[in-house]
Order: sequence, then C-alpha cells, then structure tokens
Amino acid sequence: MTQLRVAILGATGAVGSELLQLMEQRDFPVASVRLLASPRSKGKTMRFRGQNLPVLAVSEHLFDSVDVAFFSAGAEAARTWAGVAQGAGAFVIDNSSAFRMDPKVPLIVPEINWHRARPDVRYYPVGNCTGILLAMTLAPLRRFGAIKRVVVSTYQSASGAGARAMKELEEQARAFARGEEPSAKVLPYLILFNLFSHNSPINEHGYNEEEWKVINEVRKVLENDDLPIEVTCVRVPVQRAHSLSVNVEFENPAPSVGAVREAVTAFPGLELVDDREGNRFPMPALAAGRDEVLVGRIRQDLSSKHAISLFACGDQLRKGAALNAIQIGEKLIESGYLVHRS
Amino acid sequence: MTQLRVAILGATGAVGSELLQLMEQRDFPVASVRLLASPRSKGKTMRFRGQNLPVLAVSEHLFDSVDVAFFSAGAEAARTWAGVAQGAGAFVIDNSSAFRMDPKVPLIVPEINWHRARPDVRYYPVGNCTGILLAMTLAPLRRFGAIKRVVVSTYQSASGAGARAMKELEEQARAFARGEEPSAKVLPYLILFNLFSHNSPINEHGYNEEEWKVINEVRKVLENDDLPIEVTCVRVPVQRAHSLSVNVEFENPAPSVGAVREAVTAFPGLELVDDREGNRFPMPALAAGRDEVLVGRIRQDLSSKHAISLFACGDQLRKGAALNAIQIGEKLIESGYLVHRS
Repeated sequence: MTQLRVAILGATGAVGSELLQLMEQRDFPVASVRLLASPRSKGKTMRFRGQNLPVLAVSEHLFDSVDVAFFSAGAEAARTWAGVAQGAGAFVIDNSSAFRMDPKVPLIVPEINWHRARPDVRYYPVGNCTGILLAMTLAPLRRFGAIKRVVVSTYQSASGAGARAMKELEEQARAFARGEEPSAKVLPYLILFNLFSHNSPINEHGYNEEEWKVINEVRKVLENDDLPIEVTCVRVPVQRAHSLSVNVEFENPAPSVGAVREAVTAFPGLELVDDREGNRFPMPALAAGRDEVLVGRIRQDLSSKHAISLFACGDQLRKGAALNAIQIGEKLIESGYLVHRS
Repeated sequence: MTQLRVAILGATGAVGSELLQLMEQRDFPVASVRLLASPRSKGKTMRFRGQNLPVLAVSEHLFDSVDVAFFSAGAEAARTWAGVAQGAGAFVIDNSSAFRMDPKVPLIVPEINWHRARPDVRYYPVGNCTGILLAMTLAPLRRFGAIKRVVVSTYQSASGAGARAMKELEEQARAFARGEEPSAKVLPYLILFNLFSHNSPINEHGYNEEEWKVINEVRKVLENDDLPIEVTCVRVPVQRAHSLSVNVEFENPAPSVGAVREAVTAFPGLELVDDREGNRFPMPALAAGRDEVLVGRIRQDLSSKHAISLFACGDQLRKGAALNAIQIGEKLIESGYLVHRS
C-alpha cells in the first residue's frame, strides 16, 4: 500500500490531536508526518507511534513533498494555506468552513455521498460536526420517501469550541469543588451546570452561524437543496459528544419503529441504541471515543401521523471532525486518487 | 389579612425547602407551620423566620387544625394523606402527579387558568415542572390563532429528580476534581458531563412518563384536549433550571418576531430575554432562583411559514413547583376561599 507523507495543520488543537491518534489507531499509511501549528505552539512535541514529533510553525516550504495535508486550524488559516498546500502538490482535507459551500467543492460524508468525489478534486472540506451527525441520522431515512420537514434541537459539547473550551469546562468543575466561583474566559458564559444558545453571531433571520451551517451543509450532503430544516443549536456541559433530538416529517405516513430500526442498523457508521425496557438510549457517556453515531429513542410521533422522533449522539471530535477527515483520506487512497508522489 | 396554619408534607425535599423559603420571602400569611416528612427525617430542624422548626414524622392527627397543607412527597404519599388532610378540613396543594389528570380536579397555573378554581374544590394539584414551563411558554401565543402542532426538546435539571440528584451532580463534580471516577447512585447514569433520556418508564407508544405528563397536562392547562404536542425529555447536568427548545406551528401564517416579543412581554410571569446582538438568551444561569420564566431566541422558522421557534428557561423548583403551589395558595386567599378556620 502507498505510504504517504502527511502534514497536519493545527496539530495541537482538539481535532488535530484526534487526527494524530486516529492515524495511529487506524494504521493510516503514514510514511512521515509533519505537525504544523501557529508560531505560539512551536517547540511543543506530540507523541506518534512511540516517538516525540516536534510541532513546527507553519510556513510555505513545509508543504513541500507533502502528499496529503489535514487542516484543522479554522477558516482563516484554510484560506491562507489551502492554496499553498495544493500548489505544492498535496491533497487538502480541511475541517474548516472556509470552502464548504463553494458549489465547485464536494462536501463529503463518505457513508452518504462518496460518489461526489472526483479524481481532479484535490481539496475536500469536512462538514460542520453537528451537520455531519444530522446528515448521518437522516441518510438512512430517505428510503421511506421524501422528507417534508426536520426539526432539531442540539446538545453540543464543549469540544466543538476547541481544546481550550474543554479545559475550561473541567477547570470550572475543579473551581466548584474548591468552593470557588468558576469563571468563563473561552466561552461567553459559565458552561459548568449551565447551557446556552450556541455562541456564534446571529444573522438577520435570527439563526446563529452554527445553525446556518447545519441547515445548508446537511442540504448539500443529502443533495436536497430545498430540504426544510429547523435547528436550534445549544451548548451543554459535556466534553466531547454532541447529541441531537430530531423530529422528521415525511410526505408519506410515518414508517414503523421496526422499519426505522432496521434502516439505522443497516446503515454504515450508525449503531442502534434503543432499549426501551432498560431505558438505555444514545448519550455522550456511550458515544465519547466511539466512531459510530448512536441512534435511538425511535418512536412514531403521536402529534403527526407523518412524523417520527429519534435521538442521536456522536463523538464530535471523531465522526464530527477528525474521523470523517481520515475516512475521506482512506477513500481517496482506496480510489487510487491519493498516492505517494515520487 | 387571614393568618393561616400551614403544614408542609415532604418539607425536607428540594421542593419542600423551597416552599418554606418562598413563604418567608413572599410573606405568605403563616400563623404557624408544621413540617412533616417520612419518619427517617424525624429529628431534623429547618429554619423559618429566624427559628429552628422541628421536622415531625407525618401522622393523622398532625393535620388537625391545619388550614392549608402543601404536599411535595410524591404520588404515593399524596394518595395516602390527601384525603386525611381534607378530612381534617385543610386545603391541599399537591406537587405530586397523583390526581392531576382526574377530570374532577382543576390543574391550575394561575397566570393561565385561574378561572378553573372553584370554592368547593379543596384539592389543587401542581402540574409537572416541564409541563408548567411549556404551558407558560405557549399561553401568550394563543392570541395568534389556533396552534397546529408543537415540537419540544427539553434540557431538564437534576432538581427534577429531587434534592439527592442535585447533590449527586455536585458530588460527581467533586469526585472528578479529586481525580476519581464519579459514580451514579440516585440517577441511573452519570450526570456530570453527560445527559440522557429522562429516567422514567417508557410506555407502549415509546414515550416516557415525563413526556406523557407534559403532553396531557399542558393540554389540560391550556384547555385544548387535542393539541398535538411532541416532546422529548432529556436530563442534563444543570442544578435547578429546566430549558425548553420549542417549535410552534400555527394554523395561520406565523406571527412576526416583534408580535411574539410583545405577547411574551405582556404575559404575567414571563420575562423576555432575546438579545441577538449580545447573544444573550434564556439559560439556567439566568433563570435559577428567579420567579419568572425566561423566553427568547424567538424567530420565524424558515422551514415552515406557519411556525416560530423559541427557547424558554425556568427555575424548576420555583415556577416549576413550589412557586406555582404558593401562587395557588395566594390566589385561594385572595378569592376568599382559603381562610383561617376558628
């Protein structure tokens, strides 16, 4: 198998470190890995296959001879470096939102729309974490006919705001235990024992940026540009798994619970967790560190004969970000698009 | 003003202690207060107006000469003692679910349906906490015409499972800070940094008991027996305020955001918190310890021309329980139904 020269931009972040771990765990064919970050992370080291690798301050020549560069450094860094990396001959798989909605760029969740990949495309964005989890939840339901409307409320973990927000949540718990007043520095409000509307700017329609991304990206991934989606994004005091309470109205009468369970079970990347008797359903404590998106609490909605409700939970850093990125890389290799350039 | 001989059954619980505090803060006309609980709380004392009052093990004669008894001891205790207290001549205001759905019993949220109170009724249940908060959120929207369907996802605090669950959440934070594995004893799963589907039994339709209460009680309070309500109840690591993400579809086209804001502002017991620019919306950190239910994140739903979304947050122990009980008592006094019997 081809062995690749890999770069990770934003290596020290929450998604960056997850990328590195996943490459090790999944035996991603790494010949060498270059860890890149902003100058303030220079001098740090990170562990990979028993070695301490140095973190380098990103600069143009560091993309030389790179076959594939994984980006998780935000939209601004992506705008700066995606062209440079591609110019140096690398494929770019980018966790940022910079080019996701560009009509020329495919937005891929491999289980759903790998057919959108093309040999001439060398830049692949990874969707918004909540959007990926919602798309994964909706994808198997398409077999029941056209979806009329989706209403979603989210329970989003601190990891979605980065490693510093995760640390802040834990630090607030420690402050509480010491009997001190916990303070908020990274997130706008206290997150311990609290929750709040997603901390991104609100547009003229009253939706925040996260909700806007979810609506538009899910439509793009599901190739259904007019799909009516209503979503309310909320941050909760959870470390790294996002949950979604999802109501789906179909044009047809609602499918049976059994049929939905079958569809979920059959869909790659999903795991059915739906034990009514044991009161065991998807939750962060089960989803964290897992690759699968857990789906359950499936029921026919008694308020509408055309609707079902379900509850999904997935690791924001895995399927919501790093795992989806690695999967795109793996599929690019499998398809023969991404190879070691000599 | 009439001075009343009061009893509190379940005085040592989360709602019981809140009742006692509210009586002091609101100058409820208390001539004397008898604190009743199960035998295992006997010997405890509780503070009221500068005095330490003893907690007594509940028994029949302790309802003698009581004008009004507040119950917050669960459905079984209510079934045992409601008749006894009424037989002794007391009004009973009961936080349990025991008789809420009895067609002969009014289910009152004073701001919404006080007209259901009658001089001959001496037993008043207090609705489910989430149900009260949802009814309060929906009540002002009725001016915009018939509601077609409501879809709700909740974010429910530990207090809804009682004082021991609140302590468990805090104890888990302390265990985490000590570097220990937090353990779950009161709630079925870890609640710190986690969330899960409400821990009540699931019925044959796939709804848990909490969801079933919300659906049926909100219909009863709003006097709209067929109102289609879909609700998903979720427990989150928050101490004492419940949040609700609410989507409301009307028969008519959706009202404007301005009109909804006005309706919320004008409704007693609600407070509008809807600052898009400052990204400040209802959240537990603002609602805890407050009497008002906070409502905001109001927007026209772009997935349906007939729908709006909003987000509400209220103190589960206040408006969700003890405050609503005290308000019923205050209204009974004001109406001249509840008086000191000589």
